[in-house]
Amino acid sequence: MHKQSLLDNISIVLVETRTPANIGSIARCMMNMGLNRLVLVNPLRPADEEAFRLAAGADVIIRQAVVSKSLADAVADHQLVIGTSRHPGKRRKNIRSPREMAHEVIPLLAQNRTAVVFGNEVNGLDNSALALCHELVAIPSSDSFPSLNLSHAVMVIAYELFSAIPENHSPTNQQLAKSEELENFYRQLQRTLEAIGFLEREHPERMMYTLRQFLSRARPDSRDIRILRGILTAITSQHDK
Amino acid sequence: MHKQSLLDNISIVLVETRTPANIGSIARCMMNMGLNRLVLVNPLRPADEEAFRLAAGADVIIRQAVVSKSLADAVADHQLVIGTSRHPGKRRKNIRSPREMAHEVIPLLAQNRTAVVFGNEVNGLDNSALALCHELVAIPSSDSFPSLNLSHAVMVIAYELFSAIPENHSPTNQQLAKSEELENFYRQLQRTLEAIGFLEREHPERMMYTLRQFLSRARPDSRDIRILRGILTAITSQHDK
Repeated sequence: MHKQSLLDNISIVLVETRTPANIGSIARCMMNMGLNRLVLVNPLRPADEEAFRLAAGADVIIRQAVVSKSLADAVADHQLVIGTSRHPGKRRKNIRSPREMAHEVIPLLAQNRTAVVFGNEVNGLDNSALALCHELVAIPSSDSFPSLNLSHAVMVIAYELFSAIPENHSPTNQQLAKSEELENFYRQLQRTLEAIGFLEREHPERMMYTLRQFLSRARPDSRDIRILRGILTAITSQHDK
Repeated sequence: MHKQSLLDNISIVLVETRTPANIGSIARCMMNMGLNRLVLVNPLRPADEEAFRLAAGADVIIRQAVVSKSLADAVADHQLVIGTSRHPGKRRKNIRSPREMAHEVIPLLAQNRTAVVFGNEVNGLDNSALALCHELVAIPSSDSFPSLNLSHAVMVIAYELFSAIPENHSPTNQQLAKSEELENFYRQLQRTLEAIGFLEREHPERMMYTLRQFLSRARPDSRDIRILRGILTAITSQHDK
């Protein structure tokens, strides 16, 4: 399979980006590394003159960027959603380095649209955004000065993905479930767990987050999800009796 | 050996940088990756307000940057000088990827000050600068859009160096010859080769460049250089008889 057609399956998703200049720099970084699908979720301001100057010829990426109102919409048709995390926290177990992430993603790329999601310049991704991510990646950096500029973070990720794909590549055929299928499943799971009294109705987030992380690691495909939903349906009808 | 003390032996050398903004972005990238020695060779303009804004707290790196009038001076007290090349050319054989370079450099870092040299935003390094480099590194990028922004190129190199050093590291004791010793040796070599009629006096550059590349690969230490110079002295006195 051709390297470029694999790279075409990667989207860079920027959530609530504040500085148009970063959008321009990121377009250039993406094109340097053979990426071309840029998705902007609620950008604070649209790309301006400086953004196009910094894109330095990668204008097409900005002009063809998809603008989306929510991260859930932006990643709905992607099978793999990878969130970038700045500060590995206690609740965030499943965190990989960019290199580990790239080597895991590459064999899946042929059959799975993959989004790498970046938070804004100040706060990174919030918990509701992280919950939509199937895996997390953190860029190693100095403990005393860890915060990368957004465009440099994108460059490191893009460079690792570009470098990890050999010129001729034999992909696997495994197609994972789409985000949309997963999210519908998680909604049914939460309703079911509430119905059977396993989940506190007031604070379900923490347990759901843990379950999401656990199930993401299993990389379910559409059939897996249909089976799991069948089980949930069975539990509910049992409980209703 | 502690990771930081190894990183302290790395200098980032920017030759004739045109845009102060890049100097600021580079300071931030360096500090993210634990690097702190910045050398500016003939910068077109000094760091300005925008540079400090983009440094985003890495001001100390700009303020402590060494400004130098020539690349030869800047790297004179370094044992390893690595040039960044944008377009792998015919004459440039000894080119490594950033990852290969990092894995080769790390074991030598404890005993050898290492400079990574970047050309300006428009032209990269010219042949006279490349001649001073013992090895070349090129960042893999898209054939159709290969030119990285300078600060993003620095980030990729800094990230590879930072990532390649484990937290606890057992270095080798091999200390290589300093650039200054090497350059004195190359001058003597060129004089000698001219004296014995091996080198055309009009166009010695090409052959000298090939010899430099060959000898760099051998990674000579001070004793090697003394021996080689002894041989050259012997050749000359033989020839003068």
